[in-house]
Amino acid sequence: MKSIQDQCRAAAESAPDLAVISTGIKNNALLAMADALVQNEQRILTENEKDVAEGISAGLSAALIDRLRLTPERIMGMAEGLRVIADLRDPIGEITDGWVRPNGLQISRQRVPLGVVGIIYEARPNVTVDAIGLCIKTGNAVVLRGSSSAYRSNRVITEVVVAAAAEAGIPANAIQLLEDTSRDGVLVFVRMKRYLNLVIPRGGASLIQNVVENATVPSIETGVGNCHIFVDQSADLDQALSIILNAKVQRPSVCNACETVLVHETVSKSFLPRLGEALRESSVLVRGCRVTQDHIPFAEAATEDDWASEYLDLTLAVKVVSSVEDAVAHIRQFGTLHSEAILSNDFESIRYFTSRVDAAAVLVNASTRFVDGGEFGFGAEMGISTQKLHARGPMGLTELTTTKYVILGNGQIRS
Amino acid sequence: MKSIQDQCRAAAESAPDLAVISTGIKNNALLAMADALVQNEQRILTENEKDVAEGISAGLSAALIDRLRLTPERIMGMAEGLRVIADLRDPIGEITDGWVRPNGLQISRQRVPLGVVGIIYEARPNVTVDAIGLCIKTGNAVVLRGSSSAYRSNRVITEVVVAAAAEAGIPANAIQLLEDTSRDGVLVFVRMKRYLNLVIPRGGASLIQNVVENATVPSIETGVGNCHIFVDQSADLDQALSIILNAKVQRPSVCNACETVLVHETVSKSFLPRLGEALRESSVLVRGCRVTQDHIPFAEAATEDDWASEYLDLTLAVKVVSSVEDAVAHIRQFGTLHSEAILSNDFESIRYFTSRVDAAAVLVNASTRFVDGGEFGFGAEMGISTQKLHARGPMGLTELTTTKYVILGNGQIRS
Repeated sequence: MKSIQDQCRAAAESAPDLAVISTGIKNNALLAMADALVQNEQRILTENEKDVAEGISAGLSAALIDRLRLTPERIMGMAEGLRVIADLRDPIGEITDGWVRPNGLQISRQRVPLGVVGIIYEARPNVTVDAIGLCIKTGNAVVLRGSSSAYRSNRVITEVVVAAAAEAGIPANAIQLLEDTSRDGVLVFVRMKRYLNLVIPRGGASLIQNVVENATVPSIETGVGNCHIFVDQSADLDQALSIILNAKVQRPSVCNACETVLVHETVSKSFLPRLGEALRESSVLVRGCRVTQDHIPFAEAATEDDWASEYLDLTLAVKVVSSVEDAVAHIRQFGTLHSEAILSNDFESIRYFTSRVDAAAVLVNASTRFVDGGEFGFGAEMGISTQKLHARGPMGLTELTTTKYVILGNGQIRS
Repeated sequence: MKSIQDQCRAAAESAPDLAVISTGIKNNALLAMADALVQNEQRILTENEKDVAEGISAGLSAALIDRLRLTPERIMGMAEGLRVIADLRDPIGEITDGWVRPNGLQISRQRVPLGVVGIIYEARPNVTVDAIGLCIKTGNAVVLRGSSSAYRSNRVITEVVVAAAAEAGIPANAIQLLEDTSRDGVLVFVRMKRYLNLVIPRGGASLIQNVVENATVPSIETGVGNCHIFVDQSADLDQALSIILNAKVQRPSVCNACETVLVHETVSKSFLPRLGEALRESSVLVRGCRVTQDHIPFAEAATEDDWASEYLDLTLAVKVVSSVEDAVAHIRQFGTLHSEAILSNDFESIRYFTSRVDAAAVLVNASTRFVDGGEFGFGAEMGISTQKLHARGPMGLTELTTTKYVILGNGQIRS
């Protein structure tokens, strides 16, 4: 088994060459990788079946098995994702700013790759392909630390795309799948500061906490979302019903699903019974404040824990608040800076909410589910950053770059 | 003594109000702070004298005492710095990007404050004022962890500017000077993740290493600069002499001073004797490779340690290389990603060097000393980032901000 250090070093050694490869070669590589995935469909499915069988006997949940399982359609989808990335504009080389100083120095700021990007993720083989695609497009080497339960799938996928990429002119070492998928290996990986420029943990709160506590490599926190929807007194209540159901039910297991609804007291009497009925029809459990329980009889009493919970399931916390100020204060206390929505037709309330709520995304009259790289039009995403440094919200290509100042002179010295 | 936690919490509680304060109030506060510094000159000098006296009896070096000492001119300079910051354009509220999705969602990306910025720095009272000014202008609360040897100076400065800022409408808790300046306190401070959004260590390599190892708050590394100047075979040698002397001698103790000169072998015979003579006249010690020693007889033999050294003093390492490729390889091995210069008149060499060297700034035919917020025209700086995430190179106002997506809809749900 190759060591984590050796694999990170190999990636780092390939980074300088990869950083200056032309857009044409990178795009051709992405298209070749897409074709290779489709051509090797059977081989990939065979390895994936072994992972799935082992996962089932190890007692993985149905949801995890579903994320792990590949089908011809999903492989086609992964290939299509690479083709979309090939179509995106290459951010590398962009001049983001430039000016001339009084002494004649010409300063320009140019977009360049980060170098080597590490990613830690769960048993979702499609993330392997997305991460490789986004990194290659941005001229970054990538070191993937996937879940041991998806190792066979990740290995065959990586072999297939690395071969196609190398053929197209990408350094073969630029894409590394860690062979050491031990639990302790995560701690070694996030301290590979000498070789890694960024590490992105994609997964549950405990993984992210572990990385934040122990990483020396700069990291970007992703994906914990205790998202709120505030129904203001001026909200269109039909629209509110449709948005809340969408945000809670359409895909409850994801970070941009809604976890708590805050309802202005003025509309609680007219809205909560309708909301309760609709939630019951969709098999959503409700945890409510006392006033909510008056209007939704089947609601259980909410505790402080409920306000802080990211259920990721068909459960919704509901609380009645007396004003937009109250709603913002509640979100300030319990929000995770991910995505927060107000449903309102009142300009001053919307202005207050959007300026006062601190989150990667604030939505007005729309479902929180739209906070997503694909829905933003980014083509693909590397996760959703819930921190404020470097990247905030859905991370696309730009977030995998940094800049370099290039300063042209003709003999200037400083006095 | 107030605890670190209490002071960080107080700053964090003030952040939401500070974040939405108007540009006019912030600018008036900055101007009032500048006036207050000048009006309280005598009070500040009196406290500073106590710090200086204590520093002298504690045996601080002359260089440290010089940085610690305030004069009427330096207080005037600090006040002038605040006035310059007041004059800069407020980055908060800027729409950095925006588009409409096919489903009608209007997405905009707006610049907002980070929240609470922590800064750890050495005994330089002017940094106290610069940091407060940059943070207030960008709507950030700031927690300052200055050196215990400058505590009296920092305290009186902070008292003076906080009083003026509060009078002008800035929340009084938004500016906190840590009372606990113990060594262990640094470790507590850099783990105040609940309250701080960013911590910037400004100081020597050991402080920065300590922060990187232990921080849970996102941090930005600053200021370690093992900067190189490469004299290509086509360089104007008169210009090269002037640039190297400037970069080494004009202020050797700073991070953008030059530490190693690489000379193309083709010009080593004509250039090195002249360089040696000029360095000797400026009392610069030379550590050279074998070929260098042939041409600069007084040069001591350089070891591997010399190539890696940031001398911050009147010592220069000199090495003869056989090509621009060699120069870039040497810089890749020993550089600290700060500032690297090529002196050349050859387009291909310059193109190769600027695209292949990985650094915050790459200079052509100019002194490395220009990599500085003031010289870039930023008005003031919060340090020079040598990392790639979030900020790279001199950090001005923009680097103290993040963004927020605001998404306006009319009932959109995700299908």
